[in-house]
Amino acid sequence: MRYNVVKNANEILDNSKYLIKNPERYKGKWNTVFNNNNPICLELGMGRGSFIIEMAKKHPNVNYVGLELDKSQTATAVNNIKNDKIDNLRLICADAKEIANFFGKEIDTIYLTFSEPWPKRQDEKKRFTHEGYLKLYDRIFKKHKHIILKTDNKILFSSALESLSKYWYSFDVVSLDLHNDERKIKNVMTDFEKNYFKEHRTIYYLEASFKG
Amino acid sequence: MRYNVVKNANEILDNSKYLIKNPERYKGKWNTVFNNNNPICLELGMGRGSFIIEMAKKHPNVNYVGLELDKSQTATAVNNIKNDKIDNLRLICADAKEIANFFGKEIDTIYLTFSEPWPKRQDEKKRFTHEGYLKLYDRIFKKHKHIILKTDNKILFSSALESLSKYWYSFDVVSLDLHNDERKIKNVMTDFEKNYFKEHRTIYYLEASFKG
Repeated sequence: MRYNVVKNANEILDNSKYLIKNPERYKGKWNTVFNNNNPICLELGMGRGSFIIEMAKKHPNVNYVGLELDKSQTATAVNNIKNDKIDNLRLICADAKEIANFFGKEIDTIYLTFSEPWPKRQDEKKRFTHEGYLKLYDRIFKKHKHIILKTDNKILFSSALESLSKYWYSFDVVSLDLHNDERKIKNVMTDFEKNYFKEHRTIYYLEASFKG
Repeated sequence: MRYNVVKNANEILDNSKYLIKNPERYKGKWNTVFNNNNPICLELGMGRGSFIIEMAKKHPNVNYVGLELDKSQTATAVNNIKNDKIDNLRLICADAKEIANFFGKEIDTIYLTFSEPWPKRQDEKKRFTHEGYLKLYDRIFKKHKHIILKTDNKILFSSALESLSKYWYSFDVVSLDLHNDERKIKNVMTDFEKNYFKEHRTIYYLEASFKG
C-alpha cells in the first residue's frame, strides 16, 4: 500500500503535543512523560496510527507509544488523533533500530501489526522478528517479554514463528484466521485490516511471551 | 474420512511379517528387529500407511515404524505393501498411549501426518501434540527430540504451535502452505493429501526440535 506524501509533515510534527521530539531524553523515565506508572506498550511501524490510537482510547489505564519512521505517515497519525485528548498516547518519528536509545527496561508489550514483510530471503534481517531485533527488544522489555503480532503475510508469519521459538519465546495464542477464530480473540482492527476483513483475507495472529 | 471395515483384518494381520505382534518384547532393542543401527522414525496414526510405506521405500537407510489403532486400517496398510520387500518397515496395531511400553530411548523422529484434530476444546488432551503426549515422547526419543507434523486443520496446527513451544520445542520450519512454499520443502504425500492437493486445500507443516 502506498501513502500520499503529506507536504506539511514537518510543520504538523513540530506542532504536535503527541510527538516526542527527542525521545533519548526520556530513556528510563517514560513514567514521567505519562505522569503515572501504568504499563507502557510500544508499536513499531504504526503507520497512520489507527491501531495505536484506538488501543489508547480503549485502554486509558495503559500507556501507548507509536513509532514510525516515515514522516508523512506519522503526520497522518497526528492528524488522525483530531481533537481527541488522549493522555496515554505518544508518538515517535524515528527508526526502530534506535529504540534502545529511547527506552530503558520499561516496555511491557511490543505490537507488530502488518509490519513490512520483507519476503525475500536476502531481506530477512529487516523483519521486525529477526533475531537482531529480538536482541534489541531484550534491552527495553521491563521484566517479562511480550510480543503481539498480526499480519496477512504467510512468509512473515511463518518466519516469526521460527525465529521467536528459536529465541525461546513460547506462543500463548496462535491463530491462523483471526477474524474467524472460535476463541473470539480481542482485536482492534488497523486501517489495512478493515479492508482485508471486507475482502475475507486471512489474518494471522500470535501472542508470544518469555517469562524471564 | 471413513474407512471400509476390512472383514478379514485379523487374518491379514496374523499373517503379515511386517506386523510386530508383541512390540513390548523389543523395547530398547529395535535395532535387532531391523538388524542394523540406522535411525528409527515412528509415525503415530499411520492410517492406511501410504506415507510411511513411501518414506520407507525412499529412504532405505532409515528404519520406519507405523503405528495405528484401527485394525481395518492397519490391515489395509499391510495390503498396500503388496509384494514389495521393504526391510526397513514394521507396523504396530495398538494405542499410541502405549508407546513407552514398546520403545526405549531409541526413536529419532516422530511423524504426525493428518492426525485426528479433535477440534473441540474438551477433547484437546486427545491431540497428539497435547502436553500429555509430549511427555510420553520424551520417554522414547533417543537424544534430540524431533517432530514433523502436517495437517489441513487450523485448530490442530495452531494448538500444536502453542503446545510445542510451551514445551520448549523450537520450530526449524513452519509452512502455512506446504504445497506452494517457495522453499520447496521435501514432501511425501499421504492418500488424504493427494486429494487435498487436487482440491488446492491449504496444508500446514512444521518441523519442531529440542536439542537436549
